[in-house]
Amino acid sequence: MTTVPIRSLTAVLDTGRTLLEPALRDAVDLHLGPEMSGIARYHFGWADAEGRPTGTWGGKMVRPTLALLSARAAGAEAAAGLPAAVAVELVHNFSLLHDDIMDGDETRRGRATAWTVFGVPSAILAGDALVTAATSVLMSAECAGARSATLALMTATQRMIDGQAADAEFERREDVTLAECVRMAGDKTGALLGSACALGADLLGAERHLVERLGAFGEHVGLAFQLVDDLLGIWGDPDQTGKQVGADLRVRKKSLPVVAALDAPGTDELHALYLRPEPLTEADVRRVTELVERAGGRDWARGEADRQIIAAKECLSAVDIPDDVRGEFQEVAGFVVGRRL
Amino acid sequence: MTTVPIRSLTAVLDTGRTLLEPALRDAVDLHLGPEMSGIARYHFGWADAEGRPTGTWGGKMVRPTLALLSARAAGAEAAAGLPAAVAVELVHNFSLLHDDIMDGDETRRGRATAWTVFGVPSAILAGDALVTAATSVLMSAECAGARSATLALMTATQRMIDGQAADAEFERREDVTLAECVRMAGDKTGALLGSACALGADLLGAERHLVERLGAFGEHVGLAFQLVDDLLGIWGDPDQTGKQVGADLRVRKKSLPVVAALDAPGTDELHALYLRPEPLTEADVRRVTELVERAGGRDWARGEADRQIIAAKECLSAVDIPDDVRGEFQEVAGFVVGRRL
Repeated sequence: MTTVPIRSLTAVLDTGRTLLEPALRDAVDLHLGPEMSGIARYHFGWADAEGRPTGTWGGKMVRPTLALLSARAAGAEAAAGLPAAVAVELVHNFSLLHDDIMDGDETRRGRATAWTVFGVPSAILAGDALVTAATSVLMSAECAGARSATLALMTATQRMIDGQAADAEFERREDVTLAECVRMAGDKTGALLGSACALGADLLGAERHLVERLGAFGEHVGLAFQLVDDLLGIWGDPDQTGKQVGADLRVRKKSLPVVAALDAPGTDELHALYLRPEPLTEADVRRVTELVERAGGRDWARGEADRQIIAAKECLSAVDIPDDVRGEFQEVAGFVVGRRL
Repeated sequence: MTTVPIRSLTAVLDTGRTLLEPALRDAVDLHLGPEMSGIARYHFGWADAEGRPTGTWGGKMVRPTLALLSARAAGAEAAAGLPAAVAVELVHNFSLLHDDIMDGDETRRGRATAWTVFGVPSAILAGDALVTAATSVLMSAECAGARSATLALMTATQRMIDGQAADAEFERREDVTLAECVRMAGDKTGALLGSACALGADLLGAERHLVERLGAFGEHVGLAFQLVDDLLGIWGDPDQTGKQVGADLRVRKKSLPVVAALDAPGTDELHALYLRPEPLTEADVRRVTELVERAGGRDWARGEADRQIIAAKECLSAVDIPDDVRGEFQEVAGFVVGRRL
């Protein structure tokens, strides 16, 4: 029974932001040289391209908020999880800086991406500087689990990199299986989210069972998020997603619902349409949408998202943590999975 | 007095290579996913673009050889320094992978660079994977100084990144001072070489005095190397350097001898020629060469290289290490500084 009142999502995320922002700024100032920290400050939204301070910070900070909850799950104050929270946010932003270059994306959160402002070489180096700083922050923490946490974060980072590489490779392949696609999503999205949920407890030397269950919780939430994101990429409301209807189909993304449909028997027409080299017309996109749904891709993805959410809840039920922490984990997870739905 | 015979440079580097190559291959296989390890194997020269094994490995492995010597300086077997040697070589190759992208270089060691073979996104990710693996290798070592060594390597990596950023920034600036330029060279080249020399001892929990002096030794060697490299970029024999005469001048590189000359009084003609936007003719390059020499840039760089070598030797004299290890450190340092001279 919940006896402690569970705080609202806004309150939970606000606490994360209040604690995190100064710590993140300190880490950037301490570990990065002047030019690199200028790019980092721009990327985080704290400064404009000329280095002038801007207003408030736009990041949602889901991952660091989870890392702070993870510390509380281990019985500590949220602030004890700050090195974990800062490290995981640095790794996340390292991946964003490099992703934007790799994808050629020119805007992020409504602002010009760092590589468009500072050039590709400087943005590559700034990403490198953030991932290096992440290790330094975590290793500098005088905590029982600093070594274990650093290794875990590096393993998650390596999986994230593998997932990004696999994602790019799948775009060039015709024979991607659903199992491969699920593993890729787990690596690309689940690994770092799982790491965020486990890292605070790990850093504080919590028992393995707790660290592992919290990590598994985050992995399931990450997969559920990816499934929902892929569903929205096809059937989402453009007003809410900010994307065109069928945006993912138009670029022939091998998203989870599509690969589930391609994997089903009797989908020759879908194969022929989706895997041919010619651009898709609007009529083609509508037809592909219909064929993916008819082959069960939409139902499978919805069902799988539900199964991942149930599995995530089971992970939380399997650990002995304060009720308010459990409730806040659920609030943040619900936000991650449900946003834009 | 030296009583133990000092092995030849070839023998020292061969030992490094024999120990290191299997350990480096293991690290790549263990920490990198399939696609990333394919790119790493190509980059290290172990495989061709299709993944077929090639002959022997071309890397000189100066840094890992120094890391193994560092372990011996702490009284251990060379093999005890393997995690340090592997980690430093991974960081070095992370920087090469990203450098080649940033500089647009299409060949390295006579082979097509990774980004030209696998594309820029995959090569960015492969570099990211190597620096992440470096931390994992060092942190996984069951050694007293794993934490200290990891922090030191990350600090050196951060300095290397800052040095690369400063180097690129200096190309766009007209007012670079000699002090800034020396600091940049120390960051870009000295930091990782210093880290290599200190890392084996640091990992094994050696006393701080030894770790610091070995690190300072490597930093001085790194600066001497950069000075010699810059001298060769202007006055080197093209048959030995593989570069055109005056190659660095033609691209208006802010190398150390040039900045030393620009910093000197009465160099208006040099300023006007070198900092104007128009391309330099062959006659201009010859005139710039003459003006840099006349302003004392060549003498300063030669003298400073000598001073750095003397300072490096003093660092080695200040520590109590076996004579054969001291001799081998000097052999490798001589190779680093003297190569192509």
